[in-house]
Amino acid sequence: MAGRSHGRKQAAGEAPEASATLAKARDISRKIEKAIEEDPGQFRVLTGDRPTGHLHVGHYFGSLHNRVRLQNAGVETWLVIADYQVITDRDGVGPIGERVRSLVADYLAVGIDPARATIFTHSAVPALNQLMLPFLSLVTESELHRNPTVKAELEAAGNRAMSGLMLTYPVHQAADILFCKANLVPVGKDQLPHIEQTRVVADRFNSRYGKVFPRPHGLLSEADMILGLDGDKMSKSRNNTIELRMDADETAKRIKKAVTDSERFIAFDPENRPEVSNLLTLAGLAQGRSPREIAEKIGDAGAGRLKAVVTESLNDFLAPIRARRAEVEADPGYVEKVLHEGNERANAMADATLDEVRKAMKMVY
Amino acid sequence: MAGRSHGRKQAAGEAPEASATLAKARDISRKIEKAIEEDPGQFRVLTGDRPTGHLHVGHYFGSLHNRVRLQNAGVETWLVIADYQVITDRDGVGPIGERVRSLVADYLAVGIDPARATIFTHSAVPALNQLMLPFLSLVTESELHRNPTVKAELEAAGNRAMSGLMLTYPVHQAADILFCKANLVPVGKDQLPHIEQTRVVADRFNSRYGKVFPRPHGLLSEADMILGLDGDKMSKSRNNTIELRMDADETAKRIKKAVTDSERFIAFDPENRPEVSNLLTLAGLAQGRSPREIAEKIGDAGAGRLKAVVTESLNDFLAPIRARRAEVEADPGYVEKVLHEGNERANAMADATLDEVRKAMKMVY
Repeated sequence: MAGRSHGRKQAAGEAPEASATLAKARDISRKIEKAIEEDPGQFRVLTGDRPTGHLHVGHYFGSLHNRVRLQNAGVETWLVIADYQVITDRDGVGPIGERVRSLVADYLAVGIDPARATIFTHSAVPALNQLMLPFLSLVTESELHRNPTVKAELEAAGNRAMSGLMLTYPVHQAADILFCKANLVPVGKDQLPHIEQTRVVADRFNSRYGKVFPRPHGLLSEADMILGLDGDKMSKSRNNTIELRMDADETAKRIKKAVTDSERFIAFDPENRPEVSNLLTLAGLAQGRSPREIAEKIGDAGAGRLKAVVTESLNDFLAPIRARRAEVEADPGYVEKVLHEGNERANAMADATLDEVRKAMKMVY
Repeated sequence: MAGRSHGRKQAAGEAPEASATLAKARDISRKIEKAIEEDPGQFRVLTGDRPTGHLHVGHYFGSLHNRVRLQNAGVETWLVIADYQVITDRDGVGPIGERVRSLVADYLAVGIDPARATIFTHSAVPALNQLMLPFLSLVTESELHRNPTVKAELEAAGNRAMSGLMLTYPVHQAADILFCKANLVPVGKDQLPHIEQTRVVADRFNSRYGKVFPRPHGLLSEADMILGLDGDKMSKSRNNTIELRMDADETAKRIKKAVTDSERFIAFDPENRPEVSNLLTLAGLAQGRSPREIAEKIGDAGAGRLKAVVTESLNDFLAPIRARRAEVEADPGYVEKVLHEGNERANAMADATLDEVRKAMKMVY
């Protein structure tokens, strides 16, 4: 899911889906996973991130891991670096160039392969952005308001007036997904309504002007929710994350300061001991073991031992990613090349789709 | 003024300006007119139309005439055929190709010179449309609502929900004006708030990211308001117009059916005798005389004589325009060529402006 996906995903439950809808989405996702095994070539994934900071382990286990899995299964993958999304709720772009390049380095480090995946920046693809105009004609103002991200951001913004760019967020997202005719978008369950709005745009366009767009499906990923090291939502501004680009020492320091509790005996009990359980989850994900298994091994060795285990597991797990990231960073020309080629591919795709859209709308003069 | 300018202009007074603002705008316009006389090269005009029907005498005397005057005075002129604006409040584009070509033929017939003016279609210029995204970040939802066109259309739409494209209308308009760095937009007084919104977008962009855009001014045109032949607002759907493309016979037939009143004595009295006065205005404009002068000549010869005078005046006046239009229509390749060249110029301009915008926003990777 493009844009502000990670924040959304980690705040799961804030937009509860009717359980029937969720059950149906799970059922569809299971069928899609099976279809991917049989014939991955029938799918195209669109996903991506806002370049507002460096990626961290929450992003990794929450979505990057899954993206690389899909890519390696043979699903064509498009990754949008949603630079215009940065200014939906901010007055400036920040160190945008550095952040975009860091995001590309993170992608390459975790195993996104630019020979198979297209990494591009939103602002580099005019024909994609033009799709906003016909798409905006297909939705009403009240439908824009109903989007859970727009709603949540409006509430979160407090006194700040909502920008036109935030209000039209569901339509940019539809353009991101539909310009490359993606039919699959990896999502958390609270993002299902986004995909539903993109489907509405595709359906209305197709029925008004003739079939151009596929109906995309959300592919539910049921990743464990990972909290920050303080037990709060993982967030760069809280300094409670382990970023992929950090070194082993910084990782150790951060984990040393992690919040735990006063019980010496370590057990996996997310409801009553969220901070300790979260550390167990992290170690479990890094080791490919269940958090309970990790807890049993530690037993009554206390929080100090738990932190040592988490640090070692994460550093071991992240070592090859970090090595690859250092390699990528040592050759800045490579990141530029990946972006340029990605933007070129995205422009070719967007130009072709916009041509189809113009033909369908009879706007060919 | 791009888009739905003409409808707005003819419904003057529906968005009354504070008289101080209006006086100031008139003063600025007078100064601009003087500056045009002295050095037309310092100005660039953006104006245009929605391709929803054929242009009529209301358009001609209300704005086309003024555009040709500015062009001939040496002001660089850009004309947007706002094809996406057709679907702000409609579910389909209608015979859009035919209407766009007819609009081009109308422009050429009245004296727009494609060697000096750039005629282009909105949908053909992706980089112009991309400006929507940064511009949307600069305005709030409530500012969008305050736009008089958005307000009026919302009221006029009745039960119909407002589309996202209508809601964001002020921002497309800003993109239309700013992509070519136009600093002059011919407007009626009720359109001044539109130009004000474009100025706000330009100012905010410049102060946030560094100066890229000029601050456009509205050039007030104090054209006589022309009603339809039934005394109502001139509108294609009411069949109360004389279109530029009509022939002399059709013009005569239309005017024969015009609404007048039962008084035999013909006098110019817009308040008490709006229909008769409107016909006198039309004849006056066509002859380059005052409506009072026309009325005095007719005296008590009655409505029949009035209609004969109007018919003859309009047909004489329109004859060279119609001859030129027939010439243009006889060579459809010419209309295509004008559009292609215009779109090419508009794309070159939009690409250059978007490059500047990306640089200012540091979105260069």
